[in-house]
Amino acid sequence: MAAEPPPTPVRFGIIGCANIARKVSRAILLSPNSTIVAIGSRSIEKAAAFAKDNGFPASAKAYGSYDAVLDDPEVDAVYVPLPTSLHLHWAVLAARKRKHVLLEKPVALNIGELDEILAACESTGVQYMDATMWMHHPRTAEMKAFLSDPQRFGQLKAVHSIFSYNSGPEFLKNDIRLKPDLDALGALGDAGWYCIRAILWASDYQLPKIVTALKDAEFNEAGVILSCGASLLFHDGILATFYCSFLSNLTMEVSVLGANGYLRVHDFIIPFQENVGPFYVHANTKFAQLSIGIEPEPTEHLVTTDLPQEALMVKEFSSLVGKIKENGLGTETKWPTISRKTQLVVDAIKTSIDKGFEPIEVVY
Amino acid sequence: MAAEPPPTPVRFGIIGCANIARKVSRAILLSPNSTIVAIGSRSIEKAAAFAKDNGFPASAKAYGSYDAVLDDPEVDAVYVPLPTSLHLHWAVLAARKRKHVLLEKPVALNIGELDEILAACESTGVQYMDATMWMHHPRTAEMKAFLSDPQRFGQLKAVHSIFSYNSGPEFLKNDIRLKPDLDALGALGDAGWYCIRAILWASDYQLPKIVTALKDAEFNEAGVILSCGASLLFHDGILATFYCSFLSNLTMEVSVLGANGYLRVHDFIIPFQENVGPFYVHANTKFAQLSIGIEPEPTEHLVTTDLPQEALMVKEFSSLVGKIKENGLGTETKWPTISRKTQLVVDAIKTSIDKGFEPIEVVY
Repeated sequence: MAAEPPPTPVRFGIIGCANIARKVSRAILLSPNSTIVAIGSRSIEKAAAFAKDNGFPASAKAYGSYDAVLDDPEVDAVYVPLPTSLHLHWAVLAARKRKHVLLEKPVALNIGELDEILAACESTGVQYMDATMWMHHPRTAEMKAFLSDPQRFGQLKAVHSIFSYNSGPEFLKNDIRLKPDLDALGALGDAGWYCIRAILWASDYQLPKIVTALKDAEFNEAGVILSCGASLLFHDGILATFYCSFLSNLTMEVSVLGANGYLRVHDFIIPFQENVGPFYVHANTKFAQLSIGIEPEPTEHLVTTDLPQEALMVKEFSSLVGKIKENGLGTETKWPTISRKTQLVVDAIKTSIDKGFEPIEVVY
Repeated sequence: MAAEPPPTPVRFGIIGCANIARKVSRAILLSPNSTIVAIGSRSIEKAAAFAKDNGFPASAKAYGSYDAVLDDPEVDAVYVPLPTSLHLHWAVLAARKRKHVLLEKPVALNIGELDEILAACESTGVQYMDATMWMHHPRTAEMKAFLSDPQRFGQLKAVHSIFSYNSGPEFLKNDIRLKPDLDALGALGDAGWYCIRAILWASDYQLPKIVTALKDAEFNEAGVILSCGASLLFHDGILATFYCSFLSNLTMEVSVLGANGYLRVHDFIIPFQENVGPFYVHANTKFAQLSIGIEPEPTEHLVTTDLPQEALMVKEFSSLVGKIKENGLGTETKWPTISRKTQLVVDAIKTSIDKGFEPIEVVY
């Protein structure tokens, strides 16, 4: 028997030339089941220059509008790196035009907007996925295997996560993430999103019962969140906390504490090195004799990957799209579901901050 | 000129044969300016056996009461490893009998008790120190130097600490730390004490303005705290959180986030290895080109020590006692001051838990 022909690559259109689109364009081109056929910008010159600078195939089309990308019949899927406030309009329109949607995070300004996007995707049967890259690193699955080990990890008790970066005064003055009309969620949406996702991931996507923003958050003059923390209480007594900020050194931590073990990772969002992700495991740790030292010592686990995590994300997304296109299968509901849960928690923490750091019940 | 004679060693009496007293006895014998001259227990046989098992000098006296130790004129200083509920009585009595006091933590059931102990020490001019060993590891000073570096660390923004251990059902059933009449503070006093001290240490012993215990804490049937978390808000917007527990894997973390740097240490209470303490520094971390990886990578710092940290603690305590005895200097007020601040925060968090997790103002 002859080998099966390789699958037809999923053909991406990109709407917008945001900085992050450079990284994701590279990922699409690295992904074996994906290619780029179009890019749209409000300026056709900008689109053409972006295509050239980022090594797009010569056949890729540059358009002077987002609409032109959505109207191109050769485009199977769109990647949407636009400012958050534009997601509702363009993701819904893409779904209506039967383009599968890979949506940059934060995915929406609130759950109401996200639900409109998800309903549009569901109504036309297109795949939705948010662009939370670390979910797709093979390290993430290996860490989960440790957290699922009853002997070495046991019952989940506490989670803490930090994501901060300090991009300096120019960023704080001009970036879209600091403009209330473009991205009203500030550090909570851009950085807290990852911490919340990590907490949900650690809890097997159980939703917290109550979330409370921690006094005090910091804001810019326009009222956009520059830093905040929160505590999340789960039904079975799991306690999670996180801290996110635009005002502190670049830090990307998750630590997960169980009855019998402890996991820590110091570069969970973007691995320090592209081809290897380390994590650290403490299991059944006891004080040694006379409480001098401990045994056993924690161990380092190195998980290598041939493709960077963002290319694995694109590959997974395109694989789902391929199954829909070629085999007539339905969409994978896992991705919209966890995106929705993440947004629900973002919203509840935003509400807590707006209400003076009151505890807020999270309702699915 | 002849070299100065070595200082006369400070002569310790130990009251109580708690397990931790084995480790501290070893430390006293390792410390070059300290020795053990007496041990008292409610049973003279137990005291004698303890002295023999722990390599005390043959001249050390075994007493069948704590009073006998305090009445021994050869005893300069006492180490008090008794259950917390007995500290008030015995530490005050020791001070009245002009014995310097090295007091095991948690030092008291509340600030009122501690203030009585400190007043007694002050009135007779004896040195007070709590037995928080990690303060004396040379690593602690090296970490502080990093946190004080304006370029590499900058303004303090957030601290997180964890201390937990899971000593199994026998511990949970029988240990004095689980008995409300012996140690009513449970995990908050025994484990949270260290986290609170670490947070105060990181903030240069600034007190938090408001503390809030985080929903939910766990309790045993007698109402003793088995796990809890808290958030601490400082005057200049520093946000600290911690989690302490008797129900989770042995974990001893501090992470300190600044505007320009980040410090983490994974064995801050008891180093995994006795003669070397590592810590990890991230400074001026930025995303690399295309946000692939970071630069520079974090660095590991290894701080070696010839004496274990508990022996350095004894050495420091005895050095202060020696200056009082031989040079007529006054007591060092740093140690009672930070002990008192730690207790104030412990108390405020206990009050927060008792009041249903309300925010509590911390008043010095």
